[in-house]
Amino acid sequence: MEVNHINMQSDNRDPDRPAHPGIFPTHEAGKSDHQPAECSVDFPVSVVLPAGGTGERTGLQTPKQFCSFLGRPLISYTIQAFERVSWIQSIVVVVAKENMDLMTDIAQRIQHRKVRVVPGGSTRHRSICNGVLALGEGEEEERPKVVIIHDAVRPFVEEDFLYKITMAAKEQGAAGAIRPLVSTVIATTSEGYLDHSLERAKYRASEMPQGFTYDVIYQAYQRCSESDFEFGTECLHLALQYCGTNAKLIQGPPTLWKVTYKRDLAAAESIIKDTLSRSACVITGESAQAVTLAGALQKAVGALDMELDVIPDLMGENGRYLLTDWNFIQVSVNSPCLSNVEALLTDLEAANRALLHPLVVIWVHLSGSDELSVSGRVAEPAAIMDLASAAKLRNILFYGIQLHQSKDTERWEKSMLRVAEITSALIWERSPALVGQLLQA
Amino acid sequence: MEVNHINMQSDNRDPDRPAHPGIFPTHEAGKSDHQPAECSVDFPVSVVLPAGGTGERTGLQTPKQFCSFLGRPLISYTIQAFERVSWIQSIVVVVAKENMDLMTDIAQRIQHRKVRVVPGGSTRHRSICNGVLALGEGEEEERPKVVIIHDAVRPFVEEDFLYKITMAAKEQGAAGAIRPLVSTVIATTSEGYLDHSLERAKYRASEMPQGFTYDVIYQAYQRCSESDFEFGTECLHLALQYCGTNAKLIQGPPTLWKVTYKRDLAAAESIIKDTLSRSACVITGESAQAVTLAGALQKAVGALDMELDVIPDLMGENGRYLLTDWNFIQVSVNSPCLSNVEALLTDLEAANRALLHPLVVIWVHLSGSDELSVSGRVAEPAAIMDLASAAKLRNILFYGIQLHQSKDTERWEKSMLRVAEITSALIWERSPALVGQLLQA
Repeated sequence: MEVNHINMQSDNRDPDRPAHPGIFPTHEAGKSDHQPAECSVDFPVSVVLPAGGTGERTGLQTPKQFCSFLGRPLISYTIQAFERVSWIQSIVVVVAKENMDLMTDIAQRIQHRKVRVVPGGSTRHRSICNGVLALGEGEEEERPKVVIIHDAVRPFVEEDFLYKITMAAKEQGAAGAIRPLVSTVIATTSEGYLDHSLERAKYRASEMPQGFTYDVIYQAYQRCSESDFEFGTECLHLALQYCGTNAKLIQGPPTLWKVTYKRDLAAAESIIKDTLSRSACVITGESAQAVTLAGALQKAVGALDMELDVIPDLMGENGRYLLTDWNFIQVSVNSPCLSNVEALLTDLEAANRALLHPLVVIWVHLSGSDELSVSGRVAEPAAIMDLASAAKLRNILFYGIQLHQSKDTERWEKSMLRVAEITSALIWERSPALVGQLLQA
Repeated sequence: MEVNHINMQSDNRDPDRPAHPGIFPTHEAGKSDHQPAECSVDFPVSVVLPAGGTGERTGLQTPKQFCSFLGRPLISYTIQAFERVSWIQSIVVVVAKENMDLMTDIAQRIQHRKVRVVPGGSTRHRSICNGVLALGEGEEEERPKVVIIHDAVRPFVEEDFLYKITMAAKEQGAAGAIRPLVSTVIATTSEGYLDHSLERAKYRASEMPQGFTYDVIYQAYQRCSESDFEFGTECLHLALQYCGTNAKLIQGPPTLWKVTYKRDLAAAESIIKDTLSRSACVITGESAQAVTLAGALQKAVGALDMELDVIPDLMGENGRYLLTDWNFIQVSVNSPCLSNVEALLTDLEAANRALLHPLVVIWVHLSGSDELSVSGRVAEPAAIMDLASAAKLRNILFYGIQLHQSKDTERWEKSMLRVAEITSALIWERSPALVGQLLQA
């Protein structure tokens, strides 16, 4: 059966999906239990994120680092990828002068705490140089030992790879990510004919992030020429030419890819949606009927590749779901009252996580066939819509699904399947336009 | 305001979106009015599509050319890109033996008429060679003059570029698409350090499609070595080495990109969705109130960047919308009867276009405030669901939206905005899970 997102048989080797997605709120940054024990960095590390690009290649008016998906600009995802790494001290974002206010507003709105915004120069190298100089402004002991340079438009960089680059940079003075070439590289004659093709195995694509000791990158920019500032593209090259530092090259994962075209924004969105849609938390309350319903739902949604955790409430230990899950399903049987949902929305708001990603709350209501015959509806649609409109302002997307008790097994199974499909679709799409609807299963 | 797809300010320069999307059913292939007058090809041209890849890099169990989005496998989009070109005679799809049946079924289901499926070899070159040999099997006069070789996973190739490649191949013996390099290419030392970086301006990435005269590609494969068959990657290289043919290199548009990773499937889907969501056809019937409602809808949806054409019915000249549009909105005022919708669904089925892409039909119903006070509903939800379930089997996605008359201007405008947002979301998402719902605006 096809659900409404791409119909692919996933296995566990998906190289696209970050192994450790940025699912922790920024104030939890240091607490990630994913962090391998060997990743202890005992020297100061900072980041320079050049974000002055004009986005010509995307075909968009807005530079691509400021384009939004799921309500947040691309650059904020990249910042978050660094901010959640405990051993990274600060992130200098270098933007064009006309975007200083925009970038400052974004950092405030998403509560990015390690960020400092500085104005860029007329070329990429001048912008990176401004960022490096900004890092050196304080006392000498406050200067980072290693500076990581990354692109604002590569949002999926992971901690373990940053660790490798950082340690190699400290040891060698410079380090950079490489990837295998995806196309054959050919040399052309001046008339536009094939001259020869390069042997693919001998060459690599140079990617980001790159890392340098502060001294190497600082000196490279002190010594390089105006022509380097104007036309150069490769920091590794400057380190080699002006500091004699042969960078260590480390093969990076495919997640290092760069958002270049408009289509890549959709690809990035799909990766985030995939990460957010793996699981949901089902809250039943005390009713035995609700627990039975949740069990049926768990099975039906499980068949669509989403894992459901069923819990009675969010008290005590279960409160942790408020900090780890992005989707919540409140089930109720024969009880059209929305007070449970209201309490859940209040808890979610208090947890303050919707800053990062929109949260989904679905109210699944089972009504007896008696109720059906009277009105066909169990809750006041206007009440659901009002609740949803208020929640939407806080980036919580609330939907309702109603199904009816049936003793006809076939009809019941069809209904459960529809609840599962609708649930899966709502969680995947995270559509703000459909909040407050009471959908019929 | 944010609608539920990516929030990007588009302009007209989007390099991702094919200028001439494949919006014609296959039986209309020769009639495209987009075809420039100079694109007349008076010699036989055929295509070889190697599709034997195992999809390792996507991280999917299904090879990526057989992964589906919007209900159709990727390879079918690529086939369609060639099939709609009137001067292309036949398309030989080369697949692994174990996928012969799968591919034959796909070609039958989507009614691809120019396709022939042949078994591949153990390497890419052996597969292409099998395809070339299959083209030469008939009488000599039936052989193509030019053979285009393309990747099954580059679905957005356009007629004008195929024309350029074809004419250059006829003239020079061989021609290939190139693109600027996206990353700096570097040479590494055997110990994994930077040796030097290449000067980006002198090199290009070799892409697909490539074109050859039948004689050149046939002879290249007759003369090349076992090692070429085993390890070679570049047909252009074989033509140079074994036939002395220096291929003409032509810069291709960014739409030539290759679906490599799982994320690229989402990107491809977003390009198709974008193409399908540009416009919709609104059908009013004779009622003056319905015409007024359609006008308001046109304005509200227009503000979300979708163009609506308003027509009274699909009679006469207006029948053309059945052949050009992918989205239909039937408006009705105070008339809960679904007979208009049923007629529209019948017309759409007769037009036989849902083979290529799912069609969207939305019933927008305005009810007076009197009706509201009685039941809150105007049509029987079960009737809408039944109609939608039947239409879904024919790849037509039917949804309902209900709004209520209001003399309060603010409330009315809020309602119209919600109708527009829901309409835009339904058309963009094309979600099979939500068909048959009567959404409230």
